[in-house]
Amino acid sequence: MEISKMGERKLVELAKRVFKTPRSVKVGIGDDGAVISLGKHELVVTTDMLASGTDFPSGTTPFHMGWKAVVANLSDLAAMGARPLGILFSLGLPGTLEREFVEELLRGMKRSAEEHGTCVIGGDFGESPEVTICGTAVGKIEDGKALKRSGAKPGDLLAITGEPGCAAAGLEILNLKMKGHRKLVESFLKPRARLREGVILARRGWATSAIDVSDGLIRDMWNLSRGSGVKLVLEREKIPVSPALLRLTSKLGRSAWDFVLYGGEDFELIFTVSPRRWDDVERMLGKLGTKVSVVGRVEKGRGVFLQEDGKTMRVRDFGYEHFTHG
Amino acid sequence: MEISKMGERKLVELAKRVFKTPRSVKVGIGDDGAVISLGKHELVVTTDMLASGTDFPSGTTPFHMGWKAVVANLSDLAAMGARPLGILFSLGLPGTLEREFVEELLRGMKRSAEEHGTCVIGGDFGESPEVTICGTAVGKIEDGKALKRSGAKPGDLLAITGEPGCAAAGLEILNLKMKGHRKLVESFLKPRARLREGVILARRGWATSAIDVSDGLIRDMWNLSRGSGVKLVLEREKIPVSPALLRLTSKLGRSAWDFVLYGGEDFELIFTVSPRRWDDVERMLGKLGTKVSVVGRVEKGRGVFLQEDGKTMRVRDFGYEHFTHG
Repeated sequence: MEISKMGERKLVELAKRVFKTPRSVKVGIGDDGAVISLGKHELVVTTDMLASGTDFPSGTTPFHMGWKAVVANLSDLAAMGARPLGILFSLGLPGTLEREFVEELLRGMKRSAEEHGTCVIGGDFGESPEVTICGTAVGKIEDGKALKRSGAKPGDLLAITGEPGCAAAGLEILNLKMKGHRKLVESFLKPRARLREGVILARRGWATSAIDVSDGLIRDMWNLSRGSGVKLVLEREKIPVSPALLRLTSKLGRSAWDFVLYGGEDFELIFTVSPRRWDDVERMLGKLGTKVSVVGRVEKGRGVFLQEDGKTMRVRDFGYEHFTHG
Repeated sequence: MEISKMGERKLVELAKRVFKTPRSVKVGIGDDGAVISLGKHELVVTTDMLASGTDFPSGTTPFHMGWKAVVANLSDLAAMGARPLGILFSLGLPGTLEREFVEELLRGMKRSAEEHGTCVIGGDFGESPEVTICGTAVGKIEDGKALKRSGAKPGDLLAITGEPGCAAAGLEILNLKMKGHRKLVESFLKPRARLREGVILARRGWATSAIDVSDGLIRDMWNLSRGSGVKLVLEREKIPVSPALLRLTSKLGRSAWDFVLYGGEDFELIFTVSPRRWDDVERMLGKLGTKVSVVGRVEKGRGVFLQEDGKTMRVRDFGYEHFTHG
């Protein structure tokens, strides 16, 4: 069978069968990163590959490619609650690229790493038919335990940082070559990883599970639901929708929900938390200036459900057009 | 300027200028891997990208691709004297690949990791026009310090494990579709990383510098010479040449030296060691059954020199046709 027909999830299942995770590795294939015990330390290592053909719309500047590649990797650390120790890159580059292109790409990485309080500490160059940026982020769990996709329990609240859908809206603006809407475009071109938020959620042991929104709210809720073996109910009226996004969609005559529910690359965190911890979470993340919202709940069962006007319906897990992003 | 005209070395210099290495990172861009301090532990992280178009001759089986990708990454740990904690992979795959291909690729990785006493602990799938294997190896310095490319001192001996050139000879046999010469073909298709040797050289603080032979003896001596700011003199009559390689080259009517001096992917270690430590090194590596030879010496100055029949001449650092392998 061609792997394009299998999709990423089946590939990950294949990899899980072939590799078996040893006991010294606390989280293996299928989560945002691998956790390694080293004395009393917990290390988190993640890897993520972005390619110009599939992950960057045409016209993305090399600076923004570099920026986003760093964020995609750091966001996996954020989802596990790790503080970054450094990032490495393997860059696959066509030989016909100009030196200035590479320099801007590296500058984008450097700036993004710095703004997230870390740095690029190593890497490797290779030749490739398209620009391929393979990143590795290494992080450390300060204290507490690494957050995983597993761990959500019936009775927990489902919560999210920020306002999902803005990055996808920014992409749409670029595709339509519209003027203005700078904030939305920025959230697509220069997203942030929620590192400080993740560290708080892990350190206090408050969150029971977490994942970052790289593939879209619904899709990543499916990943969380599978990881924890629970049913996730998303309550539509509780989802925060950015006023900037509403202005755009009303101008376009489109529904904001396409962006909110299915738009990827926001790099917000979806997490689950016991109700008695909610006030603490809201207060501590509020101190960072981070908006955080309860958007639903965890129940016994399986799958992702959307609740609206008192009715609850199951939401399909759409296949991956490209099998990118673990 | 097109980067194909710059070559890998200038790209690495560009990266060094753009990124600055912070104090918590002991070795940064330009060595085989990055060293991170974590409490009293020293962690080594390396990354390496292999692509089907440039790094694997056509007809390489997916099993052997997987095997070699693991070895290329572990060899960077070996060159720094680190014991592996685990490997992660980002795989870029064309959507038209068959599932069986991917399964064999993963099996090659698994088997290779196991034979080196480690395992694959995580990864990510993405779509790519050619098979792209980006690996990340994480290792730990047991005690002692990470071996670096810097550290060779005038007066040190220059030494090498094994017999260089066998992997390149194996490739030639495959290219010429010759029968037999199984051992040489094996050293190309299923090379080993010198992990136990590297750990010994680092733990005892015996080696003053080290590098693995991925790009060829001369080329990697240049990398070591630059890293340490010293002159390296290779004495031709001391270089061990495999009898299997001599049988092949006499059959082909070619010189064995092309393979020995310029053949890559042997994954042997080149290292420098103080003369008063040599007997210890020879004894300890001998206990592992590893052949180890003094092949030259370190002098004040710069560059790589070949000594033969009492004459010493400077050897050019050939450019990289492909800018692969850091």
